[in-house]
Amino acid sequence: MDNVNELDLLQDVAVLTEQIMNIESVSGNEREIADQVHQALLKLEHLEVHRDQDAIVARTNFGRERRVVLAGHLDTVPLPRTEGAKGTVPAQVIDGVLYGRGATDMKGGVAVQLALAAELKDAKYDVTYVFYDHEEVEAAKSGLGRLAKNSPELLEADFAILLEPTNGTVEGGCNGTSRFVIRTHGKAAHSGRAWMGHNAIHDAAPILQRLADYQPQTITVQGLDYREGMNAVRISGGIAGNVIPDYCEVEVNYRFAPDKTLAQAEALVFDLFEGFEIERTDGAEGAKPGLDQEIAADLIRILGQEPKPKYGWTDVSRFSALGVSAVNFGPGDALLAHSDDEHVAQEDIRTCLKSLRSWLS
Amino acid sequence: MDNVNELDLLQDVAVLTEQIMNIESVSGNEREIADQVHQALLKLEHLEVHRDQDAIVARTNFGRERRVVLAGHLDTVPLPRTEGAKGTVPAQVIDGVLYGRGATDMKGGVAVQLALAAELKDAKYDVTYVFYDHEEVEAAKSGLGRLAKNSPELLEADFAILLEPTNGTVEGGCNGTSRFVIRTHGKAAHSGRAWMGHNAIHDAAPILQRLADYQPQTITVQGLDYREGMNAVRISGGIAGNVIPDYCEVEVNYRFAPDKTLAQAEALVFDLFEGFEIERTDGAEGAKPGLDQEIAADLIRILGQEPKPKYGWTDVSRFSALGVSAVNFGPGDALLAHSDDEHVAQEDIRTCLKSLRSWLS
Repeated sequence: MDNVNELDLLQDVAVLTEQIMNIESVSGNEREIADQVHQALLKLEHLEVHRDQDAIVARTNFGRERRVVLAGHLDTVPLPRTEGAKGTVPAQVIDGVLYGRGATDMKGGVAVQLALAAELKDAKYDVTYVFYDHEEVEAAKSGLGRLAKNSPELLEADFAILLEPTNGTVEGGCNGTSRFVIRTHGKAAHSGRAWMGHNAIHDAAPILQRLADYQPQTITVQGLDYREGMNAVRISGGIAGNVIPDYCEVEVNYRFAPDKTLAQAEALVFDLFEGFEIERTDGAEGAKPGLDQEIAADLIRILGQEPKPKYGWTDVSRFSALGVSAVNFGPGDALLAHSDDEHVAQEDIRTCLKSLRSWLS
Repeated sequence: MDNVNELDLLQDVAVLTEQIMNIESVSGNEREIADQVHQALLKLEHLEVHRDQDAIVARTNFGRERRVVLAGHLDTVPLPRTEGAKGTVPAQVIDGVLYGRGATDMKGGVAVQLALAAELKDAKYDVTYVFYDHEEVEAAKSGLGRLAKNSPELLEADFAILLEPTNGTVEGGCNGTSRFVIRTHGKAAHSGRAWMGHNAIHDAAPILQRLADYQPQTITVQGLDYREGMNAVRISGGIAGNVIPDYCEVEVNYRFAPDKTLAQAEALVFDLFEGFEIERTDGAEGAKPGLDQEIAADLIRILGQEPKPKYGWTDVSRFSALGVSAVNFGPGDALLAHSDDEHVAQEDIRTCLKSLRSWLS
């Protein structure tokens, strides 16, 4: 698509959002949007620009004592499959609301990053703008993870903001997430002679019962309430309609508050399913809110809104693991992310830009 | 394979079995074996031969008062996928045991039918020999079902024997079978905000618990004990590893004794899963043993063995539906059917032939 217009980073940030929404960038297909962002940033003389595959890092060198990161991912989840869904590409504007894939997650945030990168030729802090690929897919592919591995020095900072949608407030830290597979084993037999076998699906009854009975906790960390979740996300078992099933597998997702390490979360789940074969298949620790430092307090004061906990796991915890306190703050409602009618008010994108401009100036 | 030898129906019946085992006839591929059987039967002047696709019916016209059917299917289940499995094609003979696909299910039985068709130029009853396709696949494709629909007059008889493997004894009637899908519905949500959704897999806990608690019955019909079975044969639910599942489906197979109609079986299952959405997806009634008539009593007397109940659903119930009492009687162990080392003792095939010859003479 060589005919796509060059990005104009200084135009109305809502129009800029629409322009980058129209560059389809479902995970794995970020090349074009990365090229456009890269080209636009290379034109800005106050920035030092690095590229690693489809991830781009642009850094100011104002000589400030402290440095902040503004980070966002370039990819989106796949386009809606529902006919007539509004959350698709190209974007539509209806009554001041921008509809389309990426509207909330998170091309509005990326547009705010790009606008600040272009306009802030001086600031209170040095700023590192990070744009990356493969956020919406398995962790192993993450562009931010790749940057952290290949060039951790580019991510060094005193504080980071991920411009994921938070409806204009600061969401601190995030829950951890972990996945487990719990298995039962039976003995296959023809279902006409069921007594020759042993039914593994029937054996899974107590697994589901323990899940149904489990009361998830709410845990307060640095003044924010983190709601946990313990859920079966998948179950499968059975070979054929006339065979006693010899296995059943239940996949459980435990979302845990940032008061726990991954090891503590694992111990809790192993305890809950005592007596069953269980394996942890995935896991990432959460991040504490990180609101206990001056840079963060400054931002919260400017916004004039109470910070909230972040429930979902976000890349905040990757910064946390690098020793950089991080929060989420971006335009749009996270509940609309990935939905068939993903949308964001144009004004919310402009307000987010104003708030960050004010904080950085 | 034009080079396959013509079938010699008067040779040792165990060698004949081996010869027809070597004509691979996995369901859908019965053409060649049907052609060979058809050609061999056409040469026998005492038989009136009909063909319907890959099903062949050959009838004697001895002018007897009563007529019996000897029926068997020409197809087999697919070849074993396990390397080194013995139950494949071509057959092997090891120490008087014939290994290979179809050994028990049911080329031994088919060979006995063919041997009797060739040698019995007179008999106590008129005999209808039925060879058919597509027994091992969905009921809609059944060659016997097609014959019953297209030419029911060809199947008219006073008694029928299906030469399915019964280890040399008579197995009377069969259980019915029925399948149900029981569904729970939830509300999808991101698993990081589980409280926005409702978990359909957790709701399935009581379905599995009722199955685990259920005590299957044993029911005596005409002196034979029919063991029932109530089993989950499949479970599935879940959309993705980070989504609260909005559905869960449990497929249940109820095998019921021939004292019940399909409607009665359905009522029992609907009652067991009261409170859940449930749908019957499949069902076939069983057949009563049919041992209460003279022709059958005669056979049992000759064998000198107690008859047994048949647990699996077999085509006996198709004859039952046509008003023809039917039993299973054939060489080989039904437990080896479909297995990777399907086999039958050569002597068992010869013994089965002798018994039926004695009964018919």
